Amino acid sequence: MFITFEGIEGCGKSTQAKLLYEWLKENGYKALLTREPGGTEAAEEIRNFILKHHNEKFPAFAELCLYIAARGFHVENLIKPSLQKGIIVICDRFSDSTLAYQGYGRGLPIHLITSMNKEATGDIEPDITFLLDVPVEVGLSRIKAKKKDRLEEEPLQFHQRVREGFLKIAEENPDRIVVIDGTKEKGTIFSEVLNQVVRRL
Amino acid sequence: MFITFEGIEGCGKSTQAKLLYEWLKENGYKALLTREPGGTEAAEEIRNFILKHHNEKFPAFAELCLYIAARGFHVENLIKPSLQKGIIVICDRFSDSTLAYQGYGRGLPIHLITSMNKEATGDIEPDITFLLDVPVEVGLSRIKAKKKDRLEEEPLQFHQRVREGFLKIAEENPDRIVVIDGTKEKGTIFSEVLNQVVRRL
Repeated sequence: MFITFEGIEGCGKSTQAKLLYEWLKENGYKALLTREPGGTEAAEEIRNFILKHHNEKFPAFAELCLYIAARGFHVENLIKPSLQKGIIVICDRFSDSTLAYQGYGRGLPIHLITSMNKEATGDIEPDITFLLDVPVEVGLSRIKAKKKDRLEEEPLQFHQRVREGFLKIAEENPDRIVVIDGTKEKGTIFSEVLNQVVRRL
Repeated sequence: MFITFEGIEGCGKSTQAKLLYEWLKENGYKALLTREPGGTEAAEEIRNFILKHHNEKFPAFAELCLYIAARGFHVENLIKPSLQKGIIVICDRFSDSTLAYQGYGRGLPIHLITSMNKEATGDIEPDITFLLDVPVEVGLSRIKAKKKDRLEEEPLQFHQRVREGFLKIAEENPDRIVVIDGTKEKGTIFSEVLNQVVRRL
């Protein structure tokens, strides 16, 4: 089973992904917790390149290509082999994030991103995706304490477009994506997540 | 004016690009000699990542994305601003190489590569491209002395498909691409190159 968590910065997805991973381990399941961009040595190298500040303009399309490249390494070297071994893979961000950030956020062509995602992931698609939806102000206020990376520094309107993008993607994929109100209490959200996962186990 | 040199490994394009650059400088033209992948700090970082050996599988589509990402940085931060300043830009490899290597060599979808190239380069296209054509055995024998990078280590059949790919691209772009027999003497090739460039200056 392949489970992904999606949402804007500060929506609580990493916390929920970790809670689910711990629950699965404690209950005797073989599980893997990973994240994007990243997850393998090569993909983490690409992640560092994407998130750091550069001394030159970072074109939006180059950014898209780098996310997809990192995904290619991740799927081929970690996600696919783990799924083949029967391990439950939990991933913090996946293809939907690229569509939301680079497509809806940056305005790059959706059909091209979809084709590129497909080439990078092959036949690997999440069985279930949790979209933790929070207002942009809530998400950003949760991360304001720490030093922001290149993406988190984008203006409010960018994150607003990303949030709306995620909701649109969820509307178009009602069988796969479960939208959860991310402003609810952590334990309440986790019981919703667990309920959906246990039903499918 | 934007001039590119293309061809398989060991075809002599880097030598010719350098000769042309030197001739232009000596004759009072403002010129820039650059290369792909690379050309800017960020693009060179991507180049190093592409060419080095990794401890995991390197998916063909990830490789394509990385070449295109490097091109995005190069066009945006060096090629475009230089052309706007009236500088003659000479580039060792450009979009045709991606089509030849990743499209014809690796078998990735040509239409997708073309769309990605277009997104990364915008309205920047070479005014003239020199394709130095040599048999694969000739090209590879010229580079066999040095330590090979990840791409140069590909089997003979791969380089054969790349060579044929380049010739096909030249056939489809007869107004832009000049095919030169790369087995000829260095000086003879250069006089053909110079003849074409001077005619357009």
